[in-house]
Amino acid sequence: MISRGPGLSEFALIERYFRKAGAMRSDVQLGVGDDAALLQSPPGAQLVAAVDTLVAGVHFPHGSPPASIGHRALAVNLSDLAAMGARPAWALLALTLPEVSEPWLEEFTGGFSALARSHDVALVGGNTTSGPLSVTVQILGHVAKSTALLRSRGRPGDLVFVSGTPGDAAAGLAIEQSRLAASSDPDGYLRKRFLYPSPRVALGDCLRGYATACIDVSDGLLGDAGKLAHASGCGVRIAFDDVPVSEQLVSAVGEQRARELALTGGEDYELCFTVPPSEVDRLRHNLPAERWGYCCIGSLSEASGTVVTNKGSVIEFSHSGWDHFGS
Amino acid sequence: MISRGPGLSEFALIERYFRKAGAMRSDVQLGVGDDAALLQSPPGAQLVAAVDTLVAGVHFPHGSPPASIGHRALAVNLSDLAAMGARPAWALLALTLPEVSEPWLEEFTGGFSALARSHDVALVGGNTTSGPLSVTVQILGHVAKSTALLRSRGRPGDLVFVSGTPGDAAAGLAIEQSRLAASSDPDGYLRKRFLYPSPRVALGDCLRGYATACIDVSDGLLGDAGKLAHASGCGVRIAFDDVPVSEQLVSAVGEQRARELALTGGEDYELCFTVPPSEVDRLRHNLPAERWGYCCIGSLSEASGTVVTNKGSVIEFSHSGWDHFGS
Repeated sequence: MISRGPGLSEFALIERYFRKAGAMRSDVQLGVGDDAALLQSPPGAQLVAAVDTLVAGVHFPHGSPPASIGHRALAVNLSDLAAMGARPAWALLALTLPEVSEPWLEEFTGGFSALARSHDVALVGGNTTSGPLSVTVQILGHVAKSTALLRSRGRPGDLVFVSGTPGDAAAGLAIEQSRLAASSDPDGYLRKRFLYPSPRVALGDCLRGYATACIDVSDGLLGDAGKLAHASGCGVRIAFDDVPVSEQLVSAVGEQRARELALTGGEDYELCFTVPPSEVDRLRHNLPAERWGYCCIGSLSEASGTVVTNKGSVIEFSHSGWDHFGS
Repeated sequence: MISRGPGLSEFALIERYFRKAGAMRSDVQLGVGDDAALLQSPPGAQLVAAVDTLVAGVHFPHGSPPASIGHRALAVNLSDLAAMGARPAWALLALTLPEVSEPWLEEFTGGFSALARSHDVALVGGNTTSGPLSVTVQILGHVAKSTALLRSRGRPGDLVFVSGTPGDAAAGLAIEQSRLAASSDPDGYLRKRFLYPSPRVALGDCLRGYATACIDVSDGLLGDAGKLAHASGCGVRIAFDDVPVSEQLVSAVGEQRARELALTGGEDYELCFTVPPSEVDRLRHNLPAERWGYCCIGSLSEASGTVVTNKGSVIEFSHSGWDHFGS
């Protein structure tokens, strides 16, 4: 009645791709192929659920590698679970496609599946529709009761940490979009950081018992740290020079611009978390920073709002860019 | 970096709509607002999960009432759970919007929320993105272990039933699209059947213990009964004159066309289920058909394939319409 694009036989084809995607898990009693999946949660665990959508032209450029789209659609959801300290188990995938192309589906499913298997995530439900390219993934996982990391449990004085080197993905996207010269990224490191982000699931899992609050960095470190602080009823102060940046990013755009991108670029899928000063020694001892790749960038404050300091001066961000002024 | 359409303040607005949508449930430890939801499944139950997407211009006409879009996005998922005999508990909503309109969001959330509350479903996660209008809902529910209704457990000789009066929704859609005169639907009954379908959650819940197999009717009764039969390793025979049709549909399009629409129209969100002949008396006694609104339309066969009979003759469906020939 309404145009449905791909025919039933094409949907059957897609279902075949979905059936072989992801990890095999013994807690999946019924996966792709019926009206719904049947799953067995471990006793005593809380279920953790998140959903995220990637739209072509909004979250990734039109013409992105299909494997990257599949990888990122799952990665952004794994990152949500990482931010809760939860272990992922199952994913459901809703894929809207303008047309059915077997090579595209093969690559897309390959990208999704490789990441799913590396995190032991089973694809338990799939749904395909005709329309503008968009991918929605629902992720389900578990966390021991009352141990999940929330955004809202930070306290003034807690130190603020970030994992990895934010800003790389924003530069990689700029290269993908020809806004930054590809020659500035000779080995493709920055592009890879955008196309194939690494959600910090293992780190999130380990941070339970140390972190008071945690959020995943998807919209830019500055904004996401501000969201964590706001949810915790605090403000946040970030030291510009302490924001970690990769050699590759500094080499591509210079140190100043690298830190600006690290604070505002987005698409990082790193974790921003808070630890009370009394717990920092234990954190550093049990989860060595050199192995886990995190560093301290500031602290939560009583006063609300987000402040970036540079050698004692406050830097203020405005929509038109960065303004520097003494304070 | 990539255009994100609505700004953060607009997303905050949308989140406010999501926070007040749906039922309140004590098993939701953390709902909308963090990176993921924290949920407590009842002990011993299996988790049941499904996902469905509605795309503007594909699953509903552009310009559909926002309340209908919200209602249908949840209804199609509730219908998936109904087909498993599961009780719904929690939903996550991924909404892609070309622009942010408060009146639209108010109506959309109202439609979603009314249906959610009537089924005691909490909205536990929401995600909004900028892009062509599309709604993906993930539904989570529960069913007692090893009691779920599958598509695959039908056996030759089982009688095939359908709930409600399929075909109404297809006619209602045709009226919405001006392919059928609105005057043929004087009280708006058929349009309402398309715009606000009633998922058969209570019936699905009751059918556990009677039905051998069950599927929800979304793509047309003929095709969906065929899918059930195929999954069960059977064929299916349907008696044309036994296909239930509403008075309103017969009045709008005539009896012959009404039954054709009932078999092929789609968008019904009724249940098609199978019951062994030995169990039919118990079914009819404990779940009276006049109260539950189902009727027998045929049976599963050893021979594969889908056959429609009319007064002993086989009717064959082709893509160009209906062909009648003797047999």
